[in-house]
Amino acid sequence: LEKVMNGRQPTDLMLRCTVLDAEGNVKTISGQFKKSDLSAEHQLNPRDLRKIDSRVPNLVPTILVRKQAILVNILHIRALIKADTVVLFDSYGSADSRLHSVYLYHLEHNLKLKGSGLPYEFRALESTLLSVLSALEEEMVFIRTLVSGLLAELEDNIDHDRFKRLLHYSRRLASFQSRAKLVGEAIDEVLTQDEDMVAMYLTDKKNGVAHSSLEHEELEMLLESFSKQVEEIVNEVGNIDTNVQSTQEIVELILDSNRNALLALDLKVSIATFGVGTGALMTGLLGMNLTNHFESHPYAFYAMTGAAGLASFLVAFIGFRKLANLRKIGLSRSPKPQRPWLPLPLRRRSQDGWF
Amino acid sequence: LEKVMNGRQPTDLMLRCTVLDAEGNVKTISGQFKKSDLSAEHQLNPRDLRKIDSRVPNLVPTILVRKQAILVNILHIRALIKADTVVLFDSYGSADSRLHSVYLYHLEHNLKLKGSGLPYEFRALESTLLSVLSALEEEMVFIRTLVSGLLAELEDNIDHDRFKRLLHYSRRLASFQSRAKLVGEAIDEVLTQDEDMVAMYLTDKKNGVAHSSLEHEELEMLLESFSKQVEEIVNEVGNIDTNVQSTQEIVELILDSNRNALLALDLKVSIATFGVGTGALMTGLLGMNLTNHFESHPYAFYAMTGAAGLASFLVAFIGFRKLANLRKIGLSRSPKPQRPWLPLPLRRRSQDGWF
Amino acid sequence: LEKVMNGRQPTDLMLRCTVLDAEGNVKTISGQFKKSDLSAEHQLNPRDLRKIDSRVPNLVPTILVRKQAILVNILHIRALIKADTVVLFDSYGSADSRLHSVYLYHLEHNLKLKGSGLPYEFRALESTLLSVLSALEEEMVFIRTLVSGLLAELEDNIDHDRFKRLLHYSRRLASFQSRAKLVGEAIDEVLTQDEDMVAMYLTDKKNGVAHSSLEHEELEMLLESFSKQVEEIVNEVGNIDTNVQSTQEIVELILDSNRNALLALDLKVSIATFGVGTGALMTGLLGMNLTNHFESHPYAFYAMTGAAGLASFLVAFIGFRKLANLRKIGLSRSPKPQRPWLPLPLRRRSQDGWF
Amino acid sequence: LEKVMNGRQPTDLMLRCTVLDAEGNVKTISGQFKKSDLSAEHQLNPRDLRKIDSRVPNLVPTILVRKQAILVNILHIRALIKADTVVLFDSYGSADSRLHSVYLYHLEHNLKLKGSGLPYEFRALESTLLSVLSALEEEMVFIRTLVSGLLAELEDNIDHDRFKRLLHYSRRLASFQSRAKLVGEAIDEVLTQDEDMVAMYLTDKKNGVAHSSLEHEELEMLLESFSKQVEEIVNEVGNIDTNVQSTQEIVELILDSNRNALLALDLKVSIATFGVGTGALMTGLLGMNLTNHFESHPYAFYAMTGAAGLASFLVAFIGFRKLANLRKIGLSRSPKPQRPWLPLPLRRRSQDGWF
Amino acid sequence: LEKVMNGRQPTDLMLRCTVLDAEGNVKTISGQFKKSDLSAEHQLNPRDLRKIDSRVPNLVPTILVRKQAILVNILHIRALIKADTVVLFDSYGSADSRLHSVYLYHLEHNLKLKGSGLPYEFRALESTLLSVLSALEEEMVFIRTLVSGLLAELEDNIDHDRFKRLLHYSRRLASFQSRAKLVGEAIDEVLTQDEDMVAMYLTDKKNGVAHSSLEHEELEMLLESFSKQVEEIVNEVGNIDTNVQSTQEIVELILDSNRNALLALDLKVSIATFGVGTGALMTGLLGMNLTNHFESHPYAFYAMTGAAGLASFLVAFIGFRKLANLRKIGLSRSPKPQRPWLPLPLRRRSQDGWF
Repeated sequence: LEKVMNGRQPTDLMLRCTVLDAEGNVKTISGQFKKSDLSAEHQLNPRDLRKIDSRVPNLVPTILVRKQAILVNILHIRALIKADTVVLFDSYGSADSRLHSVYLYHLEHNLKLKGSGLPYEFRALESTLLSVLSALEEEMVFIRTLVSGLLAELEDNIDHDRFKRLLHYSRRLASFQSRAKLVGEAIDEVLTQDEDMVAMYLTDKKNGVAHSSLEHEELEMLLESFSKQVEEIVNEVGNIDTNVQSTQEIVELILDSNRNALLALDLKVSIATFGVGTGALMTGLLGMNLTNHFESHPYAFYAMTGAAGLASFLVAFIGFRKLANLRKIGLSRSPKPQRPWLPLPLRRRSQDGWF
Repeated sequence: LEKVMNGRQPTDLMLRCTVLDAEGNVKTISGQFKKSDLSAEHQLNPRDLRKIDSRVPNLVPTILVRKQAILVNILHIRALIKADTVVLFDSYGSADSRLHSVYLYHLEHNLKLKGSGLPYEFRALESTLLSVLSALEEEMVFIRTLVSGLLAELEDNIDHDRFKRLLHYSRRLASFQSRAKLVGEAIDEVLTQDEDMVAMYLTDKKNGVAHSSLEHEELEMLLESFSKQVEEIVNEVGNIDTNVQSTQEIVELILDSNRNALLALDLKVSIATFGVGTGALMTGLLGMNLTNHFESHPYAFYAMTGAAGLASFLVAFIGFRKLANLRKIGLSRSPKPQRPWLPLPLRRRSQDGWF
Repeated sequence: LEKVMNGRQPTDLMLRCTVLDAEGNVKTISGQFKKSDLSAEHQLNPRDLRKIDSRVPNLVPTILVRKQAILVNILHIRALIKADTVVLFDSYGSADSRLHSVYLYHLEHNLKLKGSGLPYEFRALESTLLSVLSALEEEMVFIRTLVSGLLAELEDNIDHDRFKRLLHYSRRLASFQSRAKLVGEAIDEVLTQDEDMVAMYLTDKKNGVAHSSLEHEELEMLLESFSKQVEEIVNEVGNIDTNVQSTQEIVELILDSNRNALLALDLKVSIATFGVGTGALMTGLLGMNLTNHFESHPYAFYAMTGAAGLASFLVAFIGFRKLANLRKIGLSRSPKPQRPWLPLPLRRRSQDGWF
Repeated sequence: LEKVMNGRQPTDLMLRCTVLDAEGNVKTISGQFKKSDLSAEHQLNPRDLRKIDSRVPNLVPTILVRKQAILVNILHIRALIKADTVVLFDSYGSADSRLHSVYLYHLEHNLKLKGSGLPYEFRALESTLLSVLSALEEEMVFIRTLVSGLLAELEDNIDHDRFKRLLHYSRRLASFQSRAKLVGEAIDEVLTQDEDMVAMYLTDKKNGVAHSSLEHEELEMLLESFSKQVEEIVNEVGNIDTNVQSTQEIVELILDSNRNALLALDLKVSIATFGVGTGALMTGLLGMNLTNHFESHPYAFYAMTGAAGLASFLVAFIGFRKLANLRKIGLSRSPKPQRPWLPLPLRRRSQDGWF
Repeated sequence: LEKVMNGRQPTDLMLRCTVLDAEGNVKTISGQFKKSDLSAEHQLNPRDLRKIDSRVPNLVPTILVRKQAILVNILHIRALIKADTVVLFDSYGSADSRLHSVYLYHLEHNLKLKGSGLPYEFRALESTLLSVLSALEEEMVFIRTLVSGLLAELEDNIDHDRFKRLLHYSRRLASFQSRAKLVGEAIDEVLTQDEDMVAMYLTDKKNGVAHSSLEHEELEMLLESFSKQVEEIVNEVGNIDTNVQSTQEIVELILDSNRNALLALDLKVSIATFGVGTGALMTGLLGMNLTNHFESHPYAFYAMTGAAGLASFLVAFIGFRKLANLRKIGLSRSPKPQRPWLPLPLRRRSQDGWF
């Protein structure tokens, strides 16, 4: 426990960051910075930087608005956006992933593109959210491919190993769904707080341009657009999930119904075995070493053979009839469909348009 | 990934549109327009037009209000409504569907109908929502027919193939339900934002007639009416879904109960087989090539036949009795119904009107 | 589709209405009125009257407040309430139901009763809501009787046909529940909109008595009282539904447990059959037409009979022992109950009051 | 129906009440009062008193605030609290329950206790809510004892009758849960309405001390404290319910798994029977009354006995092997665990801290 | 009941407390204080102290803001924080747990650390919430380890005892989840009430520094940070729970599918037994002590042996064929996949991106 408590106390750690300057050029690649220097330089609370610390895995994405900076911590991106600088924190030591380098490339490009009308910090934010979005989309497409492939295989054959894969996929689906939802919530949280949105106009703040708490249309449209797209992904994942759910339910029904069919076949075999057994009992009786007085009757053998065969057949026939009765199941085999009394106006309605 | 990121950057694409002028006449049919020209002409953000781009499938319907235009993107309709023009974007290349042409016909008719008191943009909106509504209604009726047909078939017979169809239908139902809900939410979102509704009075805006943020009764009633009707469809779909759910549950119970019945019959057969086997064992004993000292007793055969038959019968009888005991199941076969102690006032109540 | 779209355009239809005048007397019974005349006379939008049109079944009940009228469309009642007139629309052609005539009787009586302090329109509204309430209550009592009867039958015997009835009842329950909820929502929607409530003081409006947007205590108490009663019905239906749900779950467990019991009995029979089979094999061996060298031993027969019997018994005994082991199932048969380590304060707590 | 409608019309009924005066002394015990007199004396709407009428069972508890009185109708308590009087309505004729008399005793005591700083009406309210709370707590403890006793029994043995009791308990649990929630909602509803809370300062109102709509801290703290305690009970009931739910689910899994074990044992027996049957067929062949040319071979008997035994054993052995294969089931028996491709940053994460 | 009611009346009890002074030094360790003295000294309502009373277990954590103090009652911590004193109530008599001593140590340290910019009361609050957080985190990690260990075991083998452990773990999981949620709600409740947050600036209040109802940024950031971290834990627990749920569902499917496989093997054995039985019947026929006229035919024995073998084989072959048909189950074995009619625009869509 002490460890946990100490681990939470601010210690002076080095963070590896990539810094982009006001022109969009990379100033430092994976440089080492002291945590305390960073928080002093960017006027941040040490508590804020703790989230950035890559050694702690984080589930809940956040967009924090501070005096001179926006701290974005979503999925693979941990960035500090200021009015003229962007600091990217390397997530796991060295510059690692394809996603990250595409992000960096796009960010550089977008920051250099001054003509778009958006201030520096929003262009950085746009690139960041775009990278998040494409990561989500990519994984969504990937999971969708996996799941629909598996469901297509289930069309052909329901079996053991496919259930195990289904388990793995639905675990992934659930985890992805929760992540995507949390990203959406992080964006929406900013959208619902007017002060935060105004505080995000870092360039204007720096230049002393005041915004009233309702002037943030540009940013709102930017965020709303991303929010919608994340919502779309969440929705699609929800559809996949519903699909998996209803497949599971129906598969269970099919297995149940198949089990009944197996049981019925088993019963047929049992009945036939019973029939044969009855015949065998008869032959056994005559096989006893006792005087049955027909020992030398010339046709007794044929008669008994016929009798045993007939007994077997009869017994089996009766059994099959009983079984056939049991197998006829429907939802309405009740002798007469009862029509319960119902207040008139309601009754009419229920014929017209209600179930 | 690069592809994804690039695919999101505004590129200059051609869109096929049908344009209707202020009189409701079709000016251009499936003409080609540059995306950049369109966004410049109608003062739109390129980001807005991206949703219109028909190559990207979209799940989440939207009604976007911009300075001089309303962008509607619901189900099969992607339209740009202005104070004197309506631009319909062809969804998939050529003019394709019956729905679309009925929509165009109705739109033309409605735009020409100036006497109705509604401004140009609201008449366009009305036709658009009406087309959306009838598409939803049509599909709802279609699914309802499918599902109730299937449920009626289940009344007669519960089987394998019907479950597979049930799966397909409930997938469709779920997807339709989510779509209908999203349409409803898109309309409700506009309804909750007073500024957006005021901003939708495009004709008045053009003519310089100012609206306070609460003067939008006409539009509100229009939208509310559609919202109610979409809600009605969502409700009906919900009813169908509940119906399917409870059918599935009961079908499972019936299959379970049927399985028990099959097992019971199987048991009967097994018991009878066991009885016969007991008899056979007795005959087998006397069939051994050993001296049993009754070899030539004249009635021993009949005695043993009787004994074997009796043994078979007795064994089966005991088995059947045991089975009959097991088969009697109810929810209250417990020896005496216990009546747990309960504070008095609560006990009374539970007799009066509570369960 | 054209049909649908046209069917939505206002056409000039005749509606059959019953009209009550300011004194509460019936002026016209089932008179025919043109839709367009009605909307003109009562200053209604044609769209409003469409809901009244009885040929379209409607699920979602509504209380619409218009300039000079309140339009009520709940369950069997479609009424237009004005400051001095009540127009009842005949739902399906002729005056049909008992509910309807009781409603009309009560309405007449209540409208004549001027002394109650409530204005004309509220007395009409009160009668209307009372009729709705009693229709809901009546059906709730009816369904409750059906369901509790069925559940009582299930106490005695769980069978096939009862499941089918359960299905029908839970369908009805679900449909009734959704209807009752919608009625409650329709009333609550009016209650949340202060302007609507003020606008419902039709008599005062007619007499030029202005109400501020918060003066509507009388109406609020009236509507709240009905809202509470509908809520009570919804609550009771919810209780019935929970009851049905938990019964289904337990019935499934009981069927499962019964199936295990059947299987166990089946196993017993199989084991006994196997025992007998073992004995039979032994007799079969000695029944072969081969020299077994004991053919004429005087006690060999008895020895073998004993041996066969013993073998049968032994085999069955071992089988029964194994079965008995399997049948002992509980939730805690694990060899030693593990007590996982737990931070101390939490552990204490979990003994004190938590599960 | 007429009955229902009439039954709702205010009729002049007698109510039995116990009245406490301003000093906390009981003035009248179970006195009879006319409903109309009561409503006139306390300035109540007849509609309000209808809820008090004990003949109608009521599910939804209410705290109604009227001009000079607070009407409390929760569980076993139906009371009218004024600035100097408390009227308790006898719920079912005579003074009946222990709960009621404890309540009365506590109420008297609390009303006499003027030093507590709370005005008369709040002391009455406090006693009332305390009585409600202790009734809820008592039943909660009782149900918890029942349920945890049953669950402990299930630890030992899962059987039929316990499921029936489980059904009865979970019905009670559900009904109690809904009741407790409704009590909490009734209290919270008052807490959310500032005007109602201000209106509850009856003594100050009587003395002409005005309260602004935000001065009600005393009352707020009183109600909040009860609200928290009810919430605690609701929470605990929720925990019990979750517990019951997960027990049901696991019991189902255990029954399923036990069934598989039974089936496996059944299979073993069947396989052994089949083996024995194979041997028996061989002996049967040699038992035929046909010339097998080994009739007098001295060791043929032993050879055949050995052969039959071996055949039986071999057949059973093959069967057991097949069965053993089937019985090895785990979630990951797939030949090689597939590791699907995943965008890098997400993959890392999923190893670090996500599932 | 009397006991309950009395138990709630304020009685003068001794509480054991540890007191820290303004410098962060421990003044008293586990000293005894009278409840009434405490409430007088710290201006508390006796009702507030009741929650602190350690003999009553409490589920719902609370942070109460009073005139001169903050009362924190979360999990293992029951503390009273003032502007210059912290009173810790010993939960169960003596100073007991590791958690508690680490908390005390950290609290002392933090209170002495004046340079951090936070006032005394917030430093105390920070330590308190940190202790709560680490307790939650510790248990979460512990449960996660338990559950993932069990799930990994299930990968290898699905059996009885693991289900029992699963039950215990999911009970714990549910209880922990509800506790963690309640902690989060307690913090969020403070965050939503601006007045409460302002009232928590105890030092400023003491020094007469007034805060407007919106000046509480420091505290807001502190609480928000903890709220996020609790949310993260709740989220992770939710993921574990989803994981357990989907595992249960799939395990059920696998058990079902395994049962079908067992049944199929059983069927195979039954069929083979039936085949053998058929052969046995034939041999039985010829074993009867009747004249079959082939007694001394030299090859009759071989012919019959062959015939019996063939009959057994044929019967089994037919049975196996039937079984193989039944075992082929997939979701789409229906003869021809039906493609129901669908309005065109919807159909396209469903190919493009919808399920």
